[in-house]
Amino acid sequence: MRIYLAGPEVFLANAEAIAAEKRAICAAHGLTGVFPLEPPPVAPDAAQPEWLRIYLGNEAHIRSCDVLIANLTPFRGPSADAGTVYELGFMRALGRPVFGYSHVARRFGARTLAALGPAARRRPDGAWEDEEGMAVEEFDLHDNLMLEGGIHASGGSFEVEEVPAERRWRDLTAFTRCVAAAARGLRAAR
Amino acid sequence: MRIYLAGPEVFLANAEAIAAEKRAICAAHGLTGVFPLEPPPVAPDAAQPEWLRIYLGNEAHIRSCDVLIANLTPFRGPSADAGTVYELGFMRALGRPVFGYSHVARRFGARTLAALGPAARRRPDGAWEDEEGMAVEEFDLHDNLMLEGGIHASGGSFEVEEVPAERRWRDLTAFTRCVAAAARGLRAAR
Repeated sequence: MRIYLAGPEVFLANAEAIAAEKRAICAAHGLTGVFPLEPPPVAPDAAQPEWLRIYLGNEAHIRSCDVLIANLTPFRGPSADAGTVYELGFMRALGRPVFGYSHVARRFGARTLAALGPAARRRPDGAWEDEEGMAVEEFDLHDNLMLEGGIHASGGSFEVEEVPAERRWRDLTAFTRCVAAAARGLRAAR
Repeated sequence: MRIYLAGPEVFLANAEAIAAEKRAICAAHGLTGVFPLEPPPVAPDAAQPEWLRIYLGNEAHIRSCDVLIANLTPFRGPSADAGTVYELGFMRALGRPVFGYSHVARRFGARTLAALGPAARRRPDGAWEDEEGMAVEEFDLHDNLMLEGGIHASGGSFEVEEVPAERRWRDLTAFTRCVAAAARGLRAAR
């Protein structure tokens, strides 16, 4: 069984190191981890621009996998990396289980309010909004409700582990819990 | 033909006003606009938490539509709203055309560097990275490559219209171009 390893770790200079660690954790659970930067199943068309070749390679990787595990740790703002979020929605629509994890325990609403700072204001009904009049989503969730909604609807789970900033893109505790949960789910589905 | 109207306008206090305008533009092109806040096709299970009912309603809306048009204007950071990005990936995986638009012309790489400010630094190879060692994506695109990649692969298009901040969540020029392009594509596919 193949697991697509979604997350912004592709942006690390030594992305291959974390990819190798993730693959080893998958292998220990009898699963094959597929990192986005691996060569895609079908050779890319050299006539296409690089960004499109990367896109089509990632899409082919996702389609080739049975499960997706997404690193949804907040990335340069209150929400997760946009590419990772796109891939999460993509895999959910394929009808396969999706799992997510975050290394920040503070909830999305509180993180958004912290990012807005003094620009946040109250509506007459007491709800928070930003300086453009856009509401702050305040469910007890870790990001926009679509993310945990998709994970829940797919039968996956969301793991949270507060990790100090200096190890935020290296820690694999929550990832390992996701792999174990995915392995249990795949065994139960057989 | 039904068009799912994805975007962070659901967070506006008067979301119904922009929904009505978007529906009218769709109707002028012979299409039915479906706004996320409409009652879902199947009545939600009252025993579920509100966030999950909203999620399942949005998912059902998307599945009921033929095309998705996403407002990908940057939202509280360099990238688009996470819920909208999730929905874009979801619809692409269903194999239907997806369109996107943005009201900020400046490219993703430049916006990310501006957000990072003095924290951005050069790698030995000259590429930019942030203070955590994560690369800054610098293709000539408007967000993470997965978003425009999916739009391109689906046969959709991406429309850009620089809009002053005070009208950023109200302007419908680029949206209208997306609707016209979607209508042309749907006619051609018949």
